[in-house]
Amino acid sequence: MKLLRHGPKGKEKPGILDPQGRIRDLSSVLGDITPEWLAPDKLAQLRALKTDQLPEVAAPGRIGTPYSGLGKFLCVGLNYRDHAAEAGMPIPAEPILFTKWQNSLTGPNDPVVLPRNSRKTDWEVELGVVIGTRARYVSIERALDHVAGYCVVNDVSEREYQLERGGTWDKGKGFDTFGPVGPWLVTADEVPDPQSLDMWLDVNGKRCQTGNTRTMIFDVAFLVHYISQFTTLMPGDLISTGTPPGVGMGMKPPVFLKAGDRMTLGIDGLGSQEQQVREYDEALLD
Amino acid sequence: MKLLRHGPKGKEKPGILDPQGRIRDLSSVLGDITPEWLAPDKLAQLRALKTDQLPEVAAPGRIGTPYSGLGKFLCVGLNYRDHAAEAGMPIPAEPILFTKWQNSLTGPNDPVVLPRNSRKTDWEVELGVVIGTRARYVSIERALDHVAGYCVVNDVSEREYQLERGGTWDKGKGFDTFGPVGPWLVTADEVPDPQSLDMWLDVNGKRCQTGNTRTMIFDVAFLVHYISQFTTLMPGDLISTGTPPGVGMGMKPPVFLKAGDRMTLGIDGLGSQEQQVREYDEALLD
Repeated sequence: MKLLRHGPKGKEKPGILDPQGRIRDLSSVLGDITPEWLAPDKLAQLRALKTDQLPEVAAPGRIGTPYSGLGKFLCVGLNYRDHAAEAGMPIPAEPILFTKWQNSLTGPNDPVVLPRNSRKTDWEVELGVVIGTRARYVSIERALDHVAGYCVVNDVSEREYQLERGGTWDKGKGFDTFGPVGPWLVTADEVPDPQSLDMWLDVNGKRCQTGNTRTMIFDVAFLVHYISQFTTLMPGDLISTGTPPGVGMGMKPPVFLKAGDRMTLGIDGLGSQEQQVREYDEALLD
Repeated sequence: MKLLRHGPKGKEKPGILDPQGRIRDLSSVLGDITPEWLAPDKLAQLRALKTDQLPEVAAPGRIGTPYSGLGKFLCVGLNYRDHAAEAGMPIPAEPILFTKWQNSLTGPNDPVVLPRNSRKTDWEVELGVVIGTRARYVSIERALDHVAGYCVVNDVSEREYQLERGGTWDKGKGFDTFGPVGPWLVTADEVPDPQSLDMWLDVNGKRCQTGNTRTMIFDVAFLVHYISQFTTLMPGDLISTGTPPGVGMGMKPPVFLKAGDRMTLGIDGLGSQEQQVREYDEALLD
């Protein structure tokens, strides 16, 4: 299944793609796609629906994040061998974790707003893993049982804030609009192998990132297992699993985003995103 | 005002202390102390109540976190000169930020549960700052206008996870029960100077931490101003502002918490907490 939410920010309605790729409205079935709908029995309930009997959304307009009620937005740093190399950082011995703050969450095609006076905002296409059931001290073998599905994440990053302002990376990861998620939550049954997905990101139509999840240093199952030792993963938590090579910081000379730039990015089977970069403007964030 | 929540976990009821320090039930006024009740006009509405006309809660039982709906739980590292020295770290040039994950939140007197095989769990009494109104690019001068109130936080920390497992500090800060908050949210009008508060923490009755918020490197107003440049602070966000000297890691030799230990801690005017340390037991977390 491909679940999604459409409509104005804060007023999104639930939807599901039918086999022809058309959006069908789920409002008659559920009020919103909340974490409780990510449990296996609830997803089975949705899977049993006959989508052709649901009303088609002819003009969906804006696409929002594919579910509401995200709790933790955890990210894994330097999780692709080639990206660690381009960043000039050693291959980590265990996963690097950091946190994106909730205000960063935004729809897959919403504008990405530069912080005031920001000079080093960068892109990162990533595979997002959505937790469906609580996971604490879960084994590697059972880890994927706790995954409801997958989605595309752009882990937008201000490199000066992340790396030159002291302390942890969180400072450069949590600005409003720095976390486009979606367009869909693709349930795990449609992603039999999360470690063989092609991914890409273009800036202004020029290919910057090309990768495949098979070159992850720590795979999805290990990450869920690993993180579940440091905190309890809850339904609706999102793990963004790191980015392949091709970020702006790694170019010679480095290239960063400027107002007017257009990012397009996607992952095999999970859909694509398109964001326009905008100068800081409070009205865009309200 | 001193606002609080009492009752079993997940079923807390709202309360307020009367001038005699008795808990009065607020259920007739509001369903829960949510972020929307932290706005100035809402707090004024509560301030106008005659507490002697509210029912007294004779046997409040457990005290919960003083409000629900916490969004971001941000922490400032090494924000007391003497603590930076004891940790063997340089005085930071600008605030170090990290994130406590939401699962860490727990009532002020709930048990603190050690992670499995944890050997380096430590204590940190801290002044918590609760945001009442949205703050983005706020000036130092206007920063305190956005503060609804203050509370005691124990920023419980697993030092091996924080410092020896690679990546950011978040890994050692977010285990379930690692964030006792309360007993009260003391509104800002009762804390005319947040930079002159005595604070203390005992382990098993022995004084370990003694400090005063006047030795903070970056004061509350600066922190709110500073953080508001990296993300939008929202009503209900909590900033824990760093700890004074006397943590276990800084002792020679270092001392860490073990099952059965009892932490008591408090801040002038903000009340006190008491936690028993428990061996890992899943039942304690459910």
